[in-house]
Amino acid sequence: MDALKGTSNYPVIKIRGQEIVKTEEPVVEEIPLTIYLNDKELVTMLAAAGEEKYLVIGFLATEGIIQAVDDIKTLAIDTGKGVIHVTTTSGQIAAEKMFLKRYLTACCGKGRSAFYFVNDILTAKTVATDLTITPGEAMHYSKLLEAASETFRLTGGVHGGALAAAGELICWSQDIGRHNVFDKLYGRCLLEGISTQDKVLVFSGRVSSEILLKVSKMNISVLIARSAPTTLALDMAEELGVTVIGFARGERLNVYSHPERVRGI
Amino acid sequence: MDALKGTSNYPVIKIRGQEIVKTEEPVVEEIPLTIYLNDKELVTMLAAAGEEKYLVIGFLATEGIIQAVDDIKTLAIDTGKGVIHVTTTSGQIAAEKMFLKRYLTACCGKGRSAFYFVNDILTAKTVATDLTITPGEAMHYSKLLEAASETFRLTGGVHGGALAAAGELICWSQDIGRHNVFDKLYGRCLLEGISTQDKVLVFSGRVSSEILLKVSKMNISVLIARSAPTTLALDMAEELGVTVIGFARGERLNVYSHPERVRGI
Repeated sequence: MDALKGTSNYPVIKIRGQEIVKTEEPVVEEIPLTIYLNDKELVTMLAAAGEEKYLVIGFLATEGIIQAVDDIKTLAIDTGKGVIHVTTTSGQIAAEKMFLKRYLTACCGKGRSAFYFVNDILTAKTVATDLTITPGEAMHYSKLLEAASETFRLTGGVHGGALAAAGELICWSQDIGRHNVFDKLYGRCLLEGISTQDKVLVFSGRVSSEILLKVSKMNISVLIARSAPTTLALDMAEELGVTVIGFARGERLNVYSHPERVRGI
Repeated sequence: MDALKGTSNYPVIKIRGQEIVKTEEPVVEEIPLTIYLNDKELVTMLAAAGEEKYLVIGFLATEGIIQAVDDIKTLAIDTGKGVIHVTTTSGQIAAEKMFLKRYLTACCGKGRSAFYFVNDILTAKTVATDLTITPGEAMHYSKLLEAASETFRLTGGVHGGALAAAGELICWSQDIGRHNVFDKLYGRCLLEGISTQDKVLVFSGRVSSEILLKVSKMNISVLIARSAPTTLALDMAEELGVTVIGFARGERLNVYSHPERVRGI
């Protein structure tokens, strides 16, 4: 069997009770990608192969290193070497500082309010849209996401996320890292001019605070996850106006925050 | 119902088909922890509450900032404020440099050999033990791990990992972050003088390259995971001598690398 793009066949000994079979199975490809910003090394990310351009743009935007796609002067990706060179109009020092100090510590000194944590540090925006959704629509999107990822079915090694509207997935991404999924999605939206505030986001993984921050930065008001949230993510969601739906599997789901966007409950 | 330690009850609207129930459910607590190394801010981690001391020690050791527990002069944890002050005998500059440049880029210029990636950068050790395991033992440990985590059963929001030997789990940890699980386990072993090379490690999550590096640094020769591996993790496992078992659930498992440690196959 030829391997699906982004996967490689690896030898494996499969044991099922007493049965032992030596065969090959697809494994998801993980590659290191080093970003050089204005000729200075910024970071090495580990990611699933594919969508590298989206990943870089989304990462730089989410980290606040660029404000818009126009801030990028040049972008050269050598996936073979795992090296990406970006030149921008904004300063190098600010970028490094921002990345290294991804979270300020002021929040800790002030107690553990999600508000301080968010507001002081990452300037996440409060999301304000008049978007609403029904439980049935949320379950439908969760099923579409599950069906979308052949790589997951083959390898079990990736998370997936998609923007959805009008009963369909508009665009979707997948990666080994939960965070990378959001950077890829955001990068694609920025590059292709896809609006986000009129769509919901459906995600295969767990919702921690970093995920919630990325969602709010994308101006997404409804997050539908197939897995569990954390307390900090829910505290932030409450403050930032994000509707968090968790454990959306089959005919089930949990609404955790801002249920006013969920019609009929 | 009182919440389990490390969880908090949050309001939730549960939808099951046509049934709508407003109730409360346990959610796993996520807290920011900022490490100050010799009075200088090093990093803010997001982690599940509990085992903070293990997490810090394991993180510093895995990052190469300390070589042994004795390198730590003082360690003060204020979990309420989310602040940890560590003073060490080793230099501050080296620590910052190491953390920022967690991966050198030399590896990319040299092609994508797992060997270069590992050897040049993180000085991971090749694991050499005469430990062996049967498929039945691996399945048994996977079941013990599944049964061990009440937090997972309650919240669905954490990963778990354990060291195991002689049919039992010796010590185990859980966290929101896959990496944190390994740092907590390693920190505990270092603090309590628990040997690692004579035990196997059983883990609930996916095996990416960063996980494999942590395993090799702990001198663990057999990793049993309930989920999928990535290609880079398997390449590293091959080079570093680690037996990787994946998808260990129920009576099933896959052996991916160094099968010579698995008896009877």
